[in-house]
Amino acid sequence: MKKTLAFFIFAFLTLVLTCQELKSPNGRFSLNFEVDNGKAVYWLNLDNEAVIAKSSLGLELKDKESLLENFSLENTETKTHDETWQPVWGESSEIRNHYNELAVGLLQTNTDRRLIIRFRLFDDGLGFRYEFPEQENLTYFVIAEERTQFAMTGDHMAFWIAGDFDTQEYDYQTTRLSGIRGQMKDAIRSNTSQTPISETAVQTALQLKTDDGLYINLHEAALVEYSCMHLELDEENLIFESVLTPDAIGDKGYMQAPRTTPWRTVIASKNPGDILLSNITLNLNEPCAIEDTSWIKPVKYIGVWWEMITGKSSWAYTDLNSVQLGITDYSSTTPNGRHAANNENVKRHIDFAAQHGFDAVLVEGWNEGWEDWFAKSKDFVFDFLTPYPDFDAEMLRDYAASKGVVLMMHHETSGSVRNYERHMDAAYQFMVDNNYTSVKSGYVGDIIPRGEYHYSQWMVNHFLYAVTKAAEYKIMVNAHEAVRPTGLSRTYPNLIGNESAKGTEFEAFGGNTPDHTTILPFTRLIGGPMDYTPGIFENDVSVHNPENNSYVNTTIARQLALYVTMYSPLQMAADLPETYEKHMDAFQFIKDVALDWDKSLVLEAEPGDYVTYARKEKGKDRWFVGRTNDEVRRVSKIRFDFLTPGKKYRAIIYADASDAHFKTNPKAYAINEYVVTSKARLTQQCAPGGGYAISIDEVKNKAEAKGLKKL
Amino acid sequence: MKKTLAFFIFAFLTLVLTCQELKSPNGRFSLNFEVDNGKAVYWLNLDNEAVIAKSSLGLELKDKESLLENFSLENTETKTHDETWQPVWGESSEIRNHYNELAVGLLQTNTDRRLIIRFRLFDDGLGFRYEFPEQENLTYFVIAEERTQFAMTGDHMAFWIAGDFDTQEYDYQTTRLSGIRGQMKDAIRSNTSQTPISETAVQTALQLKTDDGLYINLHEAALVEYSCMHLELDEENLIFESVLTPDAIGDKGYMQAPRTTPWRTVIASKNPGDILLSNITLNLNEPCAIEDTSWIKPVKYIGVWWEMITGKSSWAYTDLNSVQLGITDYSSTTPNGRHAANNENVKRHIDFAAQHGFDAVLVEGWNEGWEDWFAKSKDFVFDFLTPYPDFDAEMLRDYAASKGVVLMMHHETSGSVRNYERHMDAAYQFMVDNNYTSVKSGYVGDIIPRGEYHYSQWMVNHFLYAVTKAAEYKIMVNAHEAVRPTGLSRTYPNLIGNESAKGTEFEAFGGNTPDHTTILPFTRLIGGPMDYTPGIFENDVSVHNPENNSYVNTTIARQLALYVTMYSPLQMAADLPETYEKHMDAFQFIKDVALDWDKSLVLEAEPGDYVTYARKEKGKDRWFVGRTNDEVRRVSKIRFDFLTPGKKYRAIIYADASDAHFKTNPKAYAINEYVVTSKARLTQQCAPGGGYAISIDEVKNKAEAKGLKKL
Repeated sequence: MKKTLAFFIFAFLTLVLTCQELKSPNGRFSLNFEVDNGKAVYWLNLDNEAVIAKSSLGLELKDKESLLENFSLENTETKTHDETWQPVWGESSEIRNHYNELAVGLLQTNTDRRLIIRFRLFDDGLGFRYEFPEQENLTYFVIAEERTQFAMTGDHMAFWIAGDFDTQEYDYQTTRLSGIRGQMKDAIRSNTSQTPISETAVQTALQLKTDDGLYINLHEAALVEYSCMHLELDEENLIFESVLTPDAIGDKGYMQAPRTTPWRTVIASKNPGDILLSNITLNLNEPCAIEDTSWIKPVKYIGVWWEMITGKSSWAYTDLNSVQLGITDYSSTTPNGRHAANNENVKRHIDFAAQHGFDAVLVEGWNEGWEDWFAKSKDFVFDFLTPYPDFDAEMLRDYAASKGVVLMMHHETSGSVRNYERHMDAAYQFMVDNNYTSVKSGYVGDIIPRGEYHYSQWMVNHFLYAVTKAAEYKIMVNAHEAVRPTGLSRTYPNLIGNESAKGTEFEAFGGNTPDHTTILPFTRLIGGPMDYTPGIFENDVSVHNPENNSYVNTTIARQLALYVTMYSPLQMAADLPETYEKHMDAFQFIKDVALDWDKSLVLEAEPGDYVTYARKEKGKDRWFVGRTNDEVRRVSKIRFDFLTPGKKYRAIIYADASDAHFKTNPKAYAINEYVVTSKARLTQQCAPGGGYAISIDEVKNKAEAKGLKKL
Repeated sequence: MKKTLAFFIFAFLTLVLTCQELKSPNGRFSLNFEVDNGKAVYWLNLDNEAVIAKSSLGLELKDKESLLENFSLENTETKTHDETWQPVWGESSEIRNHYNELAVGLLQTNTDRRLIIRFRLFDDGLGFRYEFPEQENLTYFVIAEERTQFAMTGDHMAFWIAGDFDTQEYDYQTTRLSGIRGQMKDAIRSNTSQTPISETAVQTALQLKTDDGLYINLHEAALVEYSCMHLELDEENLIFESVLTPDAIGDKGYMQAPRTTPWRTVIASKNPGDILLSNITLNLNEPCAIEDTSWIKPVKYIGVWWEMITGKSSWAYTDLNSVQLGITDYSSTTPNGRHAANNENVKRHIDFAAQHGFDAVLVEGWNEGWEDWFAKSKDFVFDFLTPYPDFDAEMLRDYAASKGVVLMMHHETSGSVRNYERHMDAAYQFMVDNNYTSVKSGYVGDIIPRGEYHYSQWMVNHFLYAVTKAAEYKIMVNAHEAVRPTGLSRTYPNLIGNESAKGTEFEAFGGNTPDHTTILPFTRLIGGPMDYTPGIFENDVSVHNPENNSYVNTTIARQLALYVTMYSPLQMAADLPETYEKHMDAFQFIKDVALDWDKSLVLEAEPGDYVTYARKEKGKDRWFVGRTNDEVRRVSKIRFDFLTPGKKYRAIIYADASDAHFKTNPKAYAINEYVVTSKARLTQQCAPGGGYAISIDEVKNKAEAKGLKKL
């Protein structure tokens, strides 16, 4: 009897000792970790129901014994953390970082090597990462593949884009997990640089929805000095496993202990708005590393851009077949007469920006080299310093300054990364000398050094290098075609934007799906803001360029909504000034909308269908509401209970007209003003591909509210 | 009859028109070019005997029709060039550039593309290159392989090293062409970074000797923005064909017309000295691109180096397993007590240098990072700025300055090239701030970006970038493990040296063959000077480090000779000061030997056996003679007819003692002084692995010559 009892006590203790449970602060999530037959496994429950089923952890190493098995649990450490911090800019002015943490120390018994896995459980989800402590038997190692699993509890619906080592510019697909393979072919469209991974690999952030109405989101946070992760689906077992981006020779990461990996994140809730508002990604990043952030400010801008994207104008100054920087004498070439980045046109944009309260004017095509920048694998493709003959940087700097505006720099690298780094200091100094406070960078085309991929460890290192060096020059960075963000802007708030998904430009390359912007907040925006560059008021691209029959799949009202639903501290009114001049009433919303927020709420959300946000402008009692709608005619029903009770506000609602339709009647919108209080409700029709935008200001005196309808 | 005549006239004209002949200025060489069945072919004769048999030309392109066939001769252009130019430093103070040139314009009829092949025929050999003129149908193209042939006229003797995309640090093999395959396995010894090409590929410069006693040398000149060439032997037909170094994805070159390739060179003579003294390589390079070259001067230096190479001392300050720059706090680490680059030791070297008239002291291991620099594929491996705690850069700068000496910088990159480029401006500025006038750079280990090779187009671009940027800072560069030189120092005379072959360091890694330095002038030195770092007076490495049983396969007398036979504007006395202090009589030659020359002559030469040079110091009536000897005891017989007739000179001969032997009695040397005139002759025994060195000064007055024997 004693022996049996002893045995059971021992077994129980062993079980207790090897099976670790961590609960979230509110007790609803439970993270379980165990060493199961020498393998490290975890699973995640919410309200006692499985979110992630038993999943294994570890890494496959090159030319060394892997870190996959023969583990024993050596020690554990738990702690709790609760702080509130203020981001330099963001969807809220205060962010609470509250988690319970469990760090498990594993010993790989046959190699005497140690691995730590650290779990942080928040009230809305989980983050975990691997840590390689300083130790004798593991210092330098090469990752052949990370083998982190996320075992699904069913054949969930997934909102996904095809896994690819070079591009994120694919349309989102909505299928069950079992439908990924069958859909993959259609999911991959031609791109200037692409390396599809497999028939069942997808990118993160991945949004899922179970049949029980649980929303699950998988992503990573703090991607630094490591390769970007994709997810490969094991269809038979419905398990996702990490796939890292390789380098030119197939290796997935070069590590030197002591080091940590990025965090892998699982956000989960039955309320889709919780996914959108989760701060897990930011909270898992390091605090701000920049001492003086006074130079980092949100930017509302217009640009010499859409006219080139549509094909109306040219980035290039000439129609030469090819050029050689420093050798081609542009002053003696024949201009093609379509170069948009010329002094007169830029001044016109500066005037418009100044007139309407914009901070900056982006100018693309200002510099020598655009004649042959694209798809030539040209190493010395730009020098980022030498303007075309019709662009006078100093004159325009001074002209802009006289109007209280700055120009926004453009650094298209063409993927020629060594060339960019060689010129970077001089290019940033040129910016400082000419009053540029921010730069839009681009990485269109295959990476040079040839063989590298956009999302490899090598390139992840480069993207951060560009940001940290920019900070030395007090420059803000908006990196297009760069790796998707993972919350790094907490640490480097001068990283004010990325593209890293299909943006508005694709509306001129064939169009985005009408539901595209109802998915992006659940996927692309989980890691950070997107420079989506909305504000297109003219859907028919052939109006600008008869040879381009693209159509912008949106109503005007929905374009306005995007300034609220697509959170970004950097917002562009992307269309041409002359187009806006035809709709100055609608344009007013773009002028009014704030860029930085005290608070953000999700009023309605369903991935793939609609998203409605309400946001309070930082430091003011001013709110903005935006709704983006998919291709189905829907009715939005919201309450204004986010307003301060007892106060009167004036709401201006920019909505689809009742007969609006993104395809047949996109420009039909109605603007109505109301007086509202916190008790108000709105029932609003949303057209297919439509939506609405609302600006809400305090009523300061009775006269303001006079004559307005009550909502 | 008329028809037949017409036919013959037509055939003759066709033959004449498609078969082009070019003669050298002295008429002895004849270069023939022909379009043969649509293929471009050439052959080279000397005195009507074949040097290069019929060989085809062209390039294989990727994803495009190749430039190999369907050619027709469209036009030809000939010219003659004759100039004399003065190099900033060199084996002569004046170089004549005299050639006849033929440029053949080819039209590829089925693609309407044009290719020019330009031939320059000198009195000692041929250079030719491909040119891609600006044209509609060929602008951007990728080279899959260059297909330049050098058809051999027999199974010649060859002095070769194994073809390799990453290293040139192999022992020279002496075999017939048919013996290359059988010897290849032994030809490849372990190296920190190596990528052998095939069983029959060799590197350039390749030295050949026919059974008729004709010496032929194959190399390239002006390797710029192109991949380095190796030679693959077709054993059946005895034809060498070019093999370019690939990039990470196997491509061999990215080109944008208008462009030219490097020159492919064939030097030939029955007199081996003509090979050594040929100026073809320099003459085919662009003239000096640096306006003010006053800061470029030859450098005679010693160094804190050999003690680490032998293993006596350490580059690293500590014995830590690994470090992280900027994080590891060296001030709180335990020094290993063997760090050679410490203030006291450097000062001692500065004192020695000053005492003996040396310009500079190389110091390796001065900077943080040496603990884990090697074979870890570490990206951020050095910052080139931060000294170890025991190296005070400013103090040592001032101390050296007070003694009229400078320190020589060391930039070991560990092959981490992006890291080097990121730090390069700051690193060069640090040099300027601390009085460093020259830098020895190194690329030990596999290249990062991983997948690239040391001799790819990408790396060739980097090596030149380092040199041109150095010139902006008025810095001279001596690049080790870089691509072999190809005469670029005509254009960039601040490139004062390369290693790029097995140098003296390998004497401490197992020893070089005793005949190594009798081959190097025919191979490695064809393209430019080598920082061979001779001057080892203590053969037994275990004297410095009991755990290293390497042996330096030389006599002391031969070490002195190397300062004459291994031309370089940069010369090191590589051994330890305390070793020199035991042989100050022999050391005197090193102190006296000049570094820059008015004139150079080859008195005796046979590749693999011996080389004897006589050189006249620039601007003085002062000569130095040096003989390096292989493993056979030989007798050297030279005349002093290079001296000015009618004048008396004092010759100091440093020779092997009669019983000297590199293995058994290396330190036995005899120093004798003589008075000589231009009529003098010398018969001198050379020990196995031995040689002699002679310094010859004008006798200014009778008293100097008093008591001296006459030679």
